[in-house]
Order: sequence, then C-alpha cells, then structure tokens
Amino acid sequence: MTQGFAGRMAEAVAATGPLCAGIDPSPDLLARWGLEDSADGLRTFGLRCIEAFAGVVPVVKPQVAFFERKGSAGLAALEAVLAAARDAGLLTIADAKRGDIGSTMQAYAEAWLDPASPLVADAMTVVPYMGLGALQPALDLAVAGGKGVIVVVRSSNPEGRSLQEARTGSPDDSGLGPSVEDMLLEEIAGLNRGGLEVPGTVGVVVGATLAPSAFDLSRLGGVILAPGVGAQGGTAEGAGKLFAGCAPGTVLPNVSRSLLSAGPDAGALRAAAVEECSVLRAALG
Amino acid sequence: MTQGFAGRMAEAVAATGPLCAGIDPSPDLLARWGLEDSADGLRTFGLRCIEAFAGVVPVVKPQVAFFERKGSAGLAALEAVLAAARDAGLLTIADAKRGDIGSTMQAYAEAWLDPASPLVADAMTVVPYMGLGALQPALDLAVAGGKGVIVVVRSSNPEGRSLQEARTGSPDDSGLGPSVEDMLLEEIAGLNRGGLEVPGTVGVVVGATLAPSAFDLSRLGGVILAPGVGAQGGTAEGAGKLFAGCAPGTVLPNVSRSLLSAGPDAGALRAAAVEECSVLRAALG
Repeated sequence: MTQGFAGRMAEAVAATGPLCAGIDPSPDLLARWGLEDSADGLRTFGLRCIEAFAGVVPVVKPQVAFFERKGSAGLAALEAVLAAARDAGLLTIADAKRGDIGSTMQAYAEAWLDPASPLVADAMTVVPYMGLGALQPALDLAVAGGKGVIVVVRSSNPEGRSLQEARTGSPDDSGLGPSVEDMLLEEIAGLNRGGLEVPGTVGVVVGATLAPSAFDLSRLGGVILAPGVGAQGGTAEGAGKLFAGCAPGTVLPNVSRSLLSAGPDAGALRAAAVEECSVLRAALG
Repeated sequence: MTQGFAGRMAEAVAATGPLCAGIDPSPDLLARWGLEDSADGLRTFGLRCIEAFAGVVPVVKPQVAFFERKGSAGLAALEAVLAAARDAGLLTIADAKRGDIGSTMQAYAEAWLDPASPLVADAMTVVPYMGLGALQPALDLAVAGGKGVIVVVRSSNPEGRSLQEARTGSPDDSGLGPSVEDMLLEEIAGLNRGGLEVPGTVGVVVGATLAPSAFDLSRLGGVILAPGVGAQGGTAEGAGKLFAGCAPGTVLPNVSRSLLSAGPDAGALRAAAVEECSVLRAALG
C-alpha cells in the first residue's frame, strides 16, 4: 500500500520541525524583495524560497492566487517552483482552495494531484461549501497516489464564524446537530480511520487563533494546517494549547508573511526558518 | 457611474434570451468532438463555442477547472477563449469558484476582474465558506470596473444541503437565525440595494432543481445563475416556477453538457443554442 500523506508528513516533520512555510509572492513582498511584479518576479521569488527552505522545513505551501494573478505566465512560474521543490525533497501543498462538484471537481483534482500534471503537488487545499461528499473525486485520486487533500474547516478570519458555527440538522428536527465545522471534522475523522483505503489522506485547516470547538482534534487522524501564527497575531504557545493532545508531526503552523519578511537574502530566510522550526517544535513537540 | 453587471446582462438577455452557455471541455466532450485531450484541444473547443454562440446567447461561462487541468498551457488556452468572447461581444463569466481571505482574495479578484489581467472576464464565481465579508476585495474591484461577482449560495448537488441549510445564530441564543443560504441571500440583497455603489454587482448561483428556501428571490437585485436544467434533470418549466416573480433578464439557466453535446459542428451547436434560448425565454420571460 502507498504510504499516505500524513505518514510522509510525520517523517518530514521529525527531521526538521513542524513548520509549513508559505510561498506568498504578494505585490507587497515582491516589492520588498526588489522584484518585478511579473511572472519572472514570481519565479525568482519562489525559487529563492525553495533554495532557502530546502532541508530545513518539511513542507512548502505556494499560495496559488499570487501566481494566478499573472495568468498563464504566472502559472508557468508556479510549475517551475513546484518542480524545484520536488527536486529539493520538499513536500508541497498547493494552496488552491478549490471546490466544485462532479467532473469539475475531478478536473481540479487532476490539475493538482495527478502525477502527470505540471502542477502536481503532494496535497491541495479544498473548500467544502458544496459538501464533503462533493470532494470525493479528489479523495479518490489522493488515495490512489498517496497524496493529501486538506479541507478548510475553521478559517482564521472572523467573517467565517457565522457560517462555520451554524448548526446542522433539518428545521423539522426537535434538536440540533453539530456545527458545520464539527460535522465536517467528524466526517473527516471517519474517512481517516477506515473510510478511505489510505489512513491520514484528509487533512484540515484550523486557524491557530480560534477558541477550541467541541470536536477533539486529537481524534482527527490527519494533518492539521494551522494559519494565524506570526503576522496574524497567534503565538507558538497558543497553538501548543489549542492542539494539545494531537500527535507530534500532525500539527503544522503555516507561517508566511512574518517568515518571508526575512528575505530576500536566502541565507537570512533560511536562518529565520530554522529559528521558527525550533520555536514551533518546542511548543508542539 | 459605470453600468453594473446586472444592467449589462439584462440588455444582453433582452437581445437573445436567458441562457448562460457553459464552455466545459471535459475529457468526455473533447473525445466526443474528436479533439485531443490537450491544451490545443481545449483552445479549439473553446473557440468553436465562441464562433457558435456569438450573437445568439448573452453570456458564456468557461469552466476554469477543465483548462486548469492542463496547467499553464491550459490557462493560456482559456486566455485565448476569453479574448475571442470579448471580440465577439459575448459577456463572460469565469466559473472559477474562488474564495479566500485578505490579500489572497485580492489576488484572485485581480486575476479574473482586473482589465489588465489576461484572464479578465465580466464576472467570476466565488465560494463563501470563509464568509461573505472575506470576499470584499472582489466586490470592490467589481464595483470599480462594472464587473460582477457571482456567489455560490444554493448548489444543485445533494451533498451541499446539510451545510447550506444549517441554521445560523450562536448556540447561546434562545432562538435560531436563518439558514446559511438565506443569511447569504439576505446579505447579498443588501449589497445590491445600496450596500455597494453599483447596484446589481453581486449575483448568486441557485440550483434550478431545488425546492424554494424562505428567501424571496425576487428581492435579490442581482443576476441568478441557475444550473441543473438539461443534463442534471431540471426543466425550463421547473425553473420558471422556482424563479417566478424575478425580473426578466435576471435569471439565467446555465446549460452545458446537454447543449455542448450538439457539437462539434458549429452550425448545429448554434442551432441548439437558439432553440434553448427560445425555450427558456418562453418559460422565464
């Protein structure tokens, strides 16, 4: 059986520490690094990140939107960055936040998880607005190739709370079901613990700055990507408390802006990543 | 003031009829049309759709996933298709279903709504899992350029019901708020009726095969894109009932597979689109 995404991630985290290094070439960061706001600038930015992060972080997460912003030329730059990451032995998460149904979801899954695609990554992020069941084509392709699917469940922004905390259960019921986010977490735990052929295929995004929900995250059985540490105000200690009980190697704070601000010098960026990994390992184990 | 998306759409619908013609070059349809499953095949498929639909439908909706599936080369094909649509005087909706927060959402908005982008369309579809407020960068850019933002609210697939029908309102409240979908529809109606500088900027996706929710869609003040007619089993008459009371030119059934199956001959495809427009106009006004 193919080793699953969670297993590969745990091995990589054991070697370096629990940090998901964002590759977010926003217009602001391009300017700060002295790079053109162009596809060439995106490519240079991304390749320098790979150079800096190789061997010192387990996984990089390019933010697809910043590449898509430059159209097909930007996506070609992303293809080069993903290829360089593979060559450097870094795991990759395409932060695409795709979500659709049927043959359309199948097409997105093939774009980001099919080894024959120029955009292939080790995992992709997805959005469950149309239901977890609609994501099945991505889950199937992930299982077939030992890839991961990371579902945005509890986003770190305040505007998401009313929807994600809404209570499921039909209006005819006398009682109410769990919140949307806890329903999804429960469904995902079921997939990771027998519902899919490869355990640990399905990860989640859970903001590191949120108060805990009713679901016990140590039961998830998959990777937890945790934005909010650093520029968004969260701390390693806070993340350590929120994710207490989760197995080492499963929780990865995603740090982007505060880390990338250490560039453009690759040595300085590398040193910042090493330091961040060390702080996060102390907090998360 | 710039004429808004809803106004431009109403004019175009008045000229031809209320049909949003999907451009969905799935592997199945490429094969049926005798085209290669490649970026060249995608380009040929899309350009033939533009040739067939020019002047007989108001708007085309390329499904981004089928282009993204071929990476940067596929996106270059989409750029060519979007340019041809503009030259042919067709309105365009990029069916991208993007959704994120902050500078990332801003980047997606620039990719699809900024006139300087090679991927620019007249409107893009978005997903509100992280809250309608998170989509503000797209709304701002749409207002500035007379573009549209179409929010997936009630998707036509059964897996989406439990989330979209979940009830908002914090668990501490004695009562319960509206469903997620009705909360979003109410918020969008507010944006279209004074919340944004250009009325009718925000449209919605509401499946044509669903039973009505509590929200009266005639109050929306924006474009309603309605999938489900044709291959998914919905009928023009059913759509006419669900959207009764909505102003002419605001409701557009989105027809893809059943229409595109009339290809690859451009004349046959054109004749099918003319017939579909006529049937939909009879049902929807």
